[in-house]
Amino acid sequence: MSRIEAPRDEQTGNLADRLLSGLPAEAVLTDPDVTASYANDMASFCPAGAPAVVVLPRTVEQVRHVMRTATELRVPVVPQGARTGLSGGANATDGCIVLSLTKMDRILEINPVDRIAVVEPGVINATLSRAVNEHGLYYPPDPSSWEMCTIGGNIGTASGGLCCVKYGVTAEYVLGLDVVLADGRLMSTGRRTAKGVAGYDLTRLFVGSEGSLGIVVGATLALRPQPPEQLVLAAEFASGAAACDAVCRIMEGGHVPSLLELMDRTTVKAVNDLAHMGLPETTEALLLAAFDTTDPAADLAALGALCEAAGATQVVPADDVAESELLLQARRLSLTALEAVKGTTMIDDVCVPRSRLGAMLEGTERIAEKYQLTIGVVAHAGDGNTHPTVCFDAADPDESRRARESFDEIMALGLELGGTITGEHGVGVLKKEWLAREIGPVGVEMQRQIKQVFDPLGILNPGKLF
Amino acid sequence: MSRIEAPRDEQTGNLADRLLSGLPAEAVLTDPDVTASYANDMASFCPAGAPAVVVLPRTVEQVRHVMRTATELRVPVVPQGARTGLSGGANATDGCIVLSLTKMDRILEINPVDRIAVVEPGVINATLSRAVNEHGLYYPPDPSSWEMCTIGGNIGTASGGLCCVKYGVTAEYVLGLDVVLADGRLMSTGRRTAKGVAGYDLTRLFVGSEGSLGIVVGATLALRPQPPEQLVLAAEFASGAAACDAVCRIMEGGHVPSLLELMDRTTVKAVNDLAHMGLPETTEALLLAAFDTTDPAADLAALGALCEAAGATQVVPADDVAESELLLQARRLSLTALEAVKGTTMIDDVCVPRSRLGAMLEGTERIAEKYQLTIGVVAHAGDGNTHPTVCFDAADPDESRRARESFDEIMALGLELGGTITGEHGVGVLKKEWLAREIGPVGVEMQRQIKQVFDPLGILNPGKLF
Repeated sequence: MSRIEAPRDEQTGNLADRLLSGLPAEAVLTDPDVTASYANDMASFCPAGAPAVVVLPRTVEQVRHVMRTATELRVPVVPQGARTGLSGGANATDGCIVLSLTKMDRILEINPVDRIAVVEPGVINATLSRAVNEHGLYYPPDPSSWEMCTIGGNIGTASGGLCCVKYGVTAEYVLGLDVVLADGRLMSTGRRTAKGVAGYDLTRLFVGSEGSLGIVVGATLALRPQPPEQLVLAAEFASGAAACDAVCRIMEGGHVPSLLELMDRTTVKAVNDLAHMGLPETTEALLLAAFDTTDPAADLAALGALCEAAGATQVVPADDVAESELLLQARRLSLTALEAVKGTTMIDDVCVPRSRLGAMLEGTERIAEKYQLTIGVVAHAGDGNTHPTVCFDAADPDESRRARESFDEIMALGLELGGTITGEHGVGVLKKEWLAREIGPVGVEMQRQIKQVFDPLGILNPGKLF
Repeated sequence: MSRIEAPRDEQTGNLADRLLSGLPAEAVLTDPDVTASYANDMASFCPAGAPAVVVLPRTVEQVRHVMRTATELRVPVVPQGARTGLSGGANATDGCIVLSLTKMDRILEINPVDRIAVVEPGVINATLSRAVNEHGLYYPPDPSSWEMCTIGGNIGTASGGLCCVKYGVTAEYVLGLDVVLADGRLMSTGRRTAKGVAGYDLTRLFVGSEGSLGIVVGATLALRPQPPEQLVLAAEFASGAAACDAVCRIMEGGHVPSLLELMDRTTVKAVNDLAHMGLPETTEALLLAAFDTTDPAADLAALGALCEAAGATQVVPADDVAESELLLQARRLSLTALEAVKGTTMIDDVCVPRSRLGAMLEGTERIAEKYQLTIGVVAHAGDGNTHPTVCFDAADPDESRRARESFDEIMALGLELGGTITGEHGVGVLKKEWLAREIGPVGVEMQRQIKQVFDPLGILNPGKLF
């Protein structure tokens, strides 16, 4: 059966009209100049298509209307938060509906007895963090983009951050979800209670699913009591291996730091060049550790002694919170600073068992030499989660090619060391060819079948993950 | 198409022969007197069938053989750990293969730097706990049956325990699984690393799935550093409401006790009657709290002050670890003591938001009056997880009927208060009619479809959960 294809504009017009029957005019964007600005997240090397329309619903009912329409017209839907992701998971596909949840940004409840918050998906991480602080509570997940990124996006990618070594990732804080399914049905998962085992854990299935199983329109989040402010220590090492040895001694010694970060020489230099922070450029690796305990100075002293035993050339505990904040600022500037080195970066996210961190660093250095590239490494060292960051000139095709190839080799190294291709950034478009190598053919088949259960028409964020 | 049914014995004989082609003789039990002893777990009111055969494999390959055979012959398989469950989740069905994992009981690795243990499913919880202690590590999940129950069983039911208020449930400690699927294929989920978001979280899907999606044959578990020994405080209250008010003040005050348990008057009296422990029988509710911090006495003093502010009639902190242990022993005897009251108990497991704990206690008392029953309540108060325990004489049909009816009413109350029908015991056979009431028709449909993905023939622990 053949039919004449309607011209593109007419199709889009029809789609927009249908969407407008359940959404206010200002919530439906079709101007190509505007919709193009929603085409991609912050990942490099990830293709993005042109959305047919961008919708900005404000209610669950509006999201249901969007999904019913998409199902009826068989139009792909790409859900988006603040598009700060680093794997292309929020990139548009040609002719899709971009479903931006950013206008659903209300905090509906903060309950200090139950230690929960109930939020819409568009709430910005920092907004929630500050709001719960006012109740003496703490929402730990703190991705670098926390001032911009949304809770819905954090849930989609199971985001981490600097806090994870003590407090774990986003997944640990999601108790229950309201989800609009592909066909517009509404499903609630999980609970408001501290514990619960009624049926399969669909909540966790949605966390990290990158919008490929349904649209998260509400979340019940677990909170913790606000801990004391953390005190930071900096330790310099003459080699990456010595710094990693210190990490192993710290973890083996039973310490629970609230932060344990590593910056290599390349990163330290980049930060100094950008912000003139006076970090010690003669060091090969800088370790930042912190405690948010009742006596952080004593805990830092014990940790500092382990660093010295591992060969630290200098150990400098911060005197106070202000000095601590300055050290953390250096860490937080790392990616921006590395970007300034050659204009473009490709940020990897390989996580290895922390006992293999030294091997990961050494291997990354070998890869940088082989491909004649500058690769700076910042790592959530306490988690074994490295972000090898390839600095390159995107205008140089040969360097770009080498960057891409080194990236693959870094992931292969991570798997070889018993690690994962992604600790906290997700698979998205960037790593989908690598997913199968990590989880194997049986894993891929079962995952695909689960996708099929929730999205039989394949309209939810197609081309991501698999 | 009709055919003559083979006599039962011949069918069993054929099944046993097929199983014996991949299992040693001592791993295949067919004597009905023996197999009958594997028919059920520790739940009341749950029907159990007669297994055709019990298999006790020692290797992954043997489990795969069992599942291939079961798939080929379309025979249901009921996986079992130590059968200490309280929901009938391990109960046999007529003609099934009982697949006991108790012989796969090796601890394969304990790694203090990566803070993980790799185990087979039949390892007993207490065995693992003690083994990791020797490395300065801590595996928190501590169900009451911890001296008997297996890690595989804990994973199947997502078990909790006394530790959860600070350390969470089993689910929080499962990083990765090896699973034999219904057709005998082997799948690995998850990771050895601290973080990881490669694909859907199938690990968590299996945790709490009660053996209905696959057979867990290996697990990588997260460990924590061993905390200091905890110090316990007992606080007496003149009403359950006052004790629950204290719980709310403690949680709102930002405290993180390592244990926060409640025993009502009925339970206190039962424990005294059984063990002559000299607990204060004039009290209406006894709260036990503990800290495993560096200065537990100071933390207990602050918590004790909150109890007094909530109206505690007496607050008694233990002087030392030995005295603490004595108080905990009283708590651990609770269920045995309640069983002694009338010979039989029916233990519920309703979890409510902890702010509703007072309403749950009050409602349970109302239900006990209405049905003229003795219902003792022990609760993991800090989690809002109550175990209303109906004491009855199983030989009295009318009392048994009232017990059953009160049980339903308690679950209805839990749901009404925003809670869940099961905090840590699972659905099994006991609560499957209630699951739909909690998760709704869309939730049930999606869960059934997931079951269908992993178990298209419906041979994995049929009749459980749904």
